[in-house]
Amino acid sequence: MIYNDPQLVHIVQQVVEVAGTLAFAVSGIRHAAAKHFDWFGGYVCGIAVAIGGGTIRDLILGVPPFWTTDISYLLFTGLALLLTIASRKMMKKLDNAWFVFDTLGLAAFTIAGLQKTVELGHPFWMAIVLGCITGVAGGVIRDVLLNNVPVIFHKEIYAMASVAGGLLYWLLYSISFSLPFVVIATFLFICVIRFLAVYYHLSLPTLHDER
Amino acid sequence: MIYNDPQLVHIVQQVVEVAGTLAFAVSGIRHAAAKHFDWFGGYVCGIAVAIGGGTIRDLILGVPPFWTTDISYLLFTGLALLLTIASRKMMKKLDNAWFVFDTLGLAAFTIAGLQKTVELGHPFWMAIVLGCITGVAGGVIRDVLLNNVPVIFHKEIYAMASVAGGLLYWLLYSISFSLPFVVIATFLFICVIRFLAVYYHLSLPTLHDER
Amino acid sequence: MIYNDPQLVHIVQQVVEVAGTLAFAVSGIRHAAAKHFDWFGGYVCGIAVAIGGGTIRDLILGVPPFWTTDISYLLFTGLALLLTIASRKMMKKLDNAWFVFDTLGLAAFTIAGLQKTVELGHPFWMAIVLGCITGVAGGVIRDVLLNNVPVIFHKEIYAMASVAGGLLYWLLYSISFSLPFVVIATFLFICVIRFLAVYYHLSLPTLHDER
Repeated sequence: MIYNDPQLVHIVQQVVEVAGTLAFAVSGIRHAAAKHFDWFGGYVCGIAVAIGGGTIRDLILGVPPFWTTDISYLLFTGLALLLTIASRKMMKKLDNAWFVFDTLGLAAFTIAGLQKTVELGHPFWMAIVLGCITGVAGGVIRDVLLNNVPVIFHKEIYAMASVAGGLLYWLLYSISFSLPFVVIATFLFICVIRFLAVYYHLSLPTLHDER
Repeated sequence: MIYNDPQLVHIVQQVVEVAGTLAFAVSGIRHAAAKHFDWFGGYVCGIAVAIGGGTIRDLILGVPPFWTTDISYLLFTGLALLLTIASRKMMKKLDNAWFVFDTLGLAAFTIAGLQKTVELGHPFWMAIVLGCITGVAGGVIRDVLLNNVPVIFHKEIYAMASVAGGLLYWLLYSISFSLPFVVIATFLFICVIRFLAVYYHLSLPTLHDER
Repeated sequence: MIYNDPQLVHIVQQVVEVAGTLAFAVSGIRHAAAKHFDWFGGYVCGIAVAIGGGTIRDLILGVPPFWTTDISYLLFTGLALLLTIASRKMMKKLDNAWFVFDTLGLAAFTIAGLQKTVELGHPFWMAIVLGCITGVAGGVIRDVLLNNVPVIFHKEIYAMASVAGGLLYWLLYSISFSLPFVVIATFLFICVIRFLAVYYHLSLPTLHDER
């Protein structure tokens, strides 16, 4: 089985993280394009989505932000910017691909946050919080920079897929399943929840004010 | 006198902090409700008010954020969310109670920020700055997430009550009053300023632009 | 030559940093005035521009924020607030001076970020990123607090002047020029780019959305 080969799992994890980083950067750049930002503004919004969540996680954990030792996140965001500049039509046609990549990113970043927090000896509730922050906070920063209301606060289920993944990770980990199995199960679980949420337009109940 | 019994002061401090945390969380959740956020969005806005200021303080101080070793802040915010979902009418009726609790929170959080900064050996001007940040920055984050102009920048005196409390704390501390007395006097001072400001609609002068 | 006298370079650097800090604070306060913030709101916006970029840099570098050991940044912001309150007309008349000071600030803060990052042993790409953050992130925080779309994302070249300065710094440093020469050349380069950009209304190309 695949999950008995840690090296293969690692390679798959890296491919998925690159796809996710690209999708996150593209999301920031395209939102910036909708507001007619210039190339620099697009790049900043792209990098904010790609590294924002992980940076907040690392500041809370008190460790150096993950991207400070690896220039590739900046380069992938540059690539995403070039792609967007080169062909808006192509980007539009790839909408479904970007949606899939974005979901892979959500799952991969959540798991990266879960693992890093647990490895540093924090309790599991912290891991779930920081897994969710790693997965979704970048998109919130993007919306704040764009002067939009954060989309994850009122659209289809997104952050809750990350939280549900965190809970499953905790459960399987506690039952002493092997780590690769836990990671793969969590990954698929997050993706399935997100796909179902978008397909069936599932969202959390809305709060109402008093008036 | 009460301020000669440090243990009693400590218990009162804890009760006040819980009331303040609840009030801060409720403030975030109700503001989110006014924008029709979903439950997750409401929770995030609630937690942002409850822990945002203290988190910024701790990042500046270079210590782990206070809530990372104590899950109760997350649970109190969950409780605040349940209360808000369960009964909007009750929340509306409790408006005055929430206002009082919010003021207790402002005073308690300011003092927590003052004490933590002084204990870590920083000068008093830093303590006043970080006391104010602990008390009011959560509300600013809430307003930024909700895409509102921060309310403390143009309404009744709020942050200045925190700053005034910090100055009094410094003064009394310098005259070598006992710590419990300093804390209680500062606490009451902040509450009184805030109550007077709201009762008499006191606000700072407004800036005007050149046109 | 001036760049052979490190002490003179240091004095000039300090004068320029004070002028830049004042200009940055004034920029925050005047933007706040345009939204009719009160004095406290103006002060917070001023301090956000003056210290925001350097604070983010220091949090990423894992060192205490530079202003925590030096109260002068808070005092200069207070001075800027007093000036703005005292005479709006004078501030308006000084528009050109503030523009020049702001450009000096952009160059000085960029160089401060470059030097601090290199001194801590980070690679040059990190220095360029953090130099840019030191120079421009304060203005982004100001715009977020004011509920505006960040102006550097869609106006004349500003952040790119900082990045270009970082690249020149790297180049000259690699060719082993003396540090004072590298600093002065970078400083003038950033100022010239910024002046040309505003004079000729140079801006980066804009992104377009798909519709």
